[in-house]
Amino acid sequence: MVDYIGVADVARLIQAMGPGEFIDRLADQILADYRRWDEFEKSARLASHSPVGVIELMPTTDGKLYSFKYVNGHPQNTAVGLLTVTAFGVLADVATGYPLLLSELTVTTALRTAAMSALAARLLARPASRVMALIGNGSQSEFQAIAFHRMIGIRELRLYDLDRRATSKLERNLGAMEGLEDLRIVRAASTAEACRGADIVTTVTADKRNAVILTPPMVRPGMHLNAVGGDCPGKTELHPDVLRMPQARVVVEYEPQSRIEGEIQQMPADFAVTEFAAIARGASPGRRTDEEVTIFDSVGFALEDYSALRFLYTLLAEERIERRRIDLVPTLEDPKDLFGGTIGAGRQRRRLRQSA
Amino acid sequence: MVDYIGVADVARLIQAMGPGEFIDRLADQILADYRRWDEFEKSARLASHSPVGVIELMPTTDGKLYSFKYVNGHPQNTAVGLLTVTAFGVLADVATGYPLLLSELTVTTALRTAAMSALAARLLARPASRVMALIGNGSQSEFQAIAFHRMIGIRELRLYDLDRRATSKLERNLGAMEGLEDLRIVRAASTAEACRGADIVTTVTADKRNAVILTPPMVRPGMHLNAVGGDCPGKTELHPDVLRMPQARVVVEYEPQSRIEGEIQQMPADFAVTEFAAIARGASPGRRTDEEVTIFDSVGFALEDYSALRFLYTLLAEERIERRRIDLVPTLEDPKDLFGGTIGAGRQRRRLRQSA
Repeated sequence: MVDYIGVADVARLIQAMGPGEFIDRLADQILADYRRWDEFEKSARLASHSPVGVIELMPTTDGKLYSFKYVNGHPQNTAVGLLTVTAFGVLADVATGYPLLLSELTVTTALRTAAMSALAARLLARPASRVMALIGNGSQSEFQAIAFHRMIGIRELRLYDLDRRATSKLERNLGAMEGLEDLRIVRAASTAEACRGADIVTTVTADKRNAVILTPPMVRPGMHLNAVGGDCPGKTELHPDVLRMPQARVVVEYEPQSRIEGEIQQMPADFAVTEFAAIARGASPGRRTDEEVTIFDSVGFALEDYSALRFLYTLLAEERIERRRIDLVPTLEDPKDLFGGTIGAGRQRRRLRQSA
Repeated sequence: MVDYIGVADVARLIQAMGPGEFIDRLADQILADYRRWDEFEKSARLASHSPVGVIELMPTTDGKLYSFKYVNGHPQNTAVGLLTVTAFGVLADVATGYPLLLSELTVTTALRTAAMSALAARLLARPASRVMALIGNGSQSEFQAIAFHRMIGIRELRLYDLDRRATSKLERNLGAMEGLEDLRIVRAASTAEACRGADIVTTVTADKRNAVILTPPMVRPGMHLNAVGGDCPGKTELHPDVLRMPQARVVVEYEPQSRIEGEIQQMPADFAVTEFAAIARGASPGRRTDEEVTIFDSVGFALEDYSALRFLYTLLAEERIERRRIDLVPTLEDPKDLFGGTIGAGRQRRRLRQSA
């Protein structure tokens, strides 16, 4: 039997725990895992592209636990009432190969992406950052807002999206949360207006194309850019000149994957980047000067899903999530008797005669 | 919501339908899919090796449906009462990226492997084949016996396993099936004895090492060898001289994967092989002479799991399997409002205040 966590379970958990606490604790787990970066087996994700989207598998292991995530990206899905991104994942025991946990990861990925973004900002943004522009107000945006309010101390949020209804939805959701009453929410008329005076700019747009959300005139010295939306080949958000700005410093999760999928897919192969793990482990400094433009070129890495699945598994052990099990793998009295233990030879007599 | 098929569902299905009919119909599906080989996106499986075993992901797609299988191989598992191999898989819609079906594949893989083995034998073994040696009497053996009885017309089975209890278990399970009363079952004292006079030799042993189950003196002209057990690097069953026999002709599923995992990992990179798809489509002949030694160097390919998942999905539509659904992905009224539609901003008021 395999533990199962569905969408309703995660929703109930977050309702009980609060998204802020979940994100905060998950960020601790992610940081702890990034600090033992060398223990993980790492590979660029395995992507299957079609004209309308992509389906990816993202496996990793630290030699004790193995995890993978299934995730799709279909920007046109919303037109038919479906999500752009859905995901689920599995945590397994390396010693036996048995799956331990199957979990929804659509909601959880939004939480882990926000946790990762805020974690990076904690090491890269100016500590006094209080104002954030949030460009792209779709499915991920509430999670980013909550994470940056909680973990960074953002107190003013400037919203912009081409789709005004998306901004209204975000404003409505955030406005309904009493824990956020010290968060000032401002609608901007353009990306440029949203960025004016912002300490941090988060871009989390969904278009599958080389978009130009941010250009150099919008970027001021000392800004931290949290570029979340550009995350597969042909899907970027920053004008390449932003990456080339003299004060710019680009931080990525896993360099070989980011060269394919990140903003830096626009740059030559020798364009200098810093891996987040190096900063997490103190091998590289975080922000160095008040003028530095730090860019977290985030695409999402398998380690973060490993952390999320492990965290959910811990919460299950803590009985914060109701235990449910599914018969995804057999339980046998005699492990060498798969046939007898499942289909059951004895019970087959009549049927075999009929079908023979 | 995603359709779910567990171990109990598959067991009930096979009890009702009979394993022979299931294997027969699945073989038709596999053959139909191999005949449109060029439509599939193919890759060697993504393996994560540890000192005690391997965990693999096997994705494929034909541009309409996407499937992957998770499968482990841990030969020492039986010592702690666990199966050597467990598996599950997912069928997804390429147009939306949404998963359609999550299914157990431990029992189903044994059925599909047997279906594939018998399918290959139908094209490669002498039509008059009636006697099969079955070397390795573990979890897969009943399925192989049923498939070859049903699809090839095997009427004498010669069993051998190093573990006598495994042979007793197989004999007991097969003996309990009234549909098999025209199948003579003989226990052999050795592999050599089992092979003497056999038309087909099936090797389905579990040891993760370069074993030497079959040597040239055991192999007679006209034999068909169904080598199932050697299926990962360092795990083979045939002496390399068997592959080099002048009458030998080696058939594989997907050449790039088989070069890594199959019996032919023992051979130079230019060792001649025929892909099964070429035979399935009539581009290459099946058996050419009565003297030819045909060797199906089977490792299992993602297309076969695609076929199995599709077949299960068809049986679900035919209401041969009871419909169960799990909330692995969210169902939202507004696909752009993941937060509001799941965690629910309104319900968060009290909690957020507490956790802020």
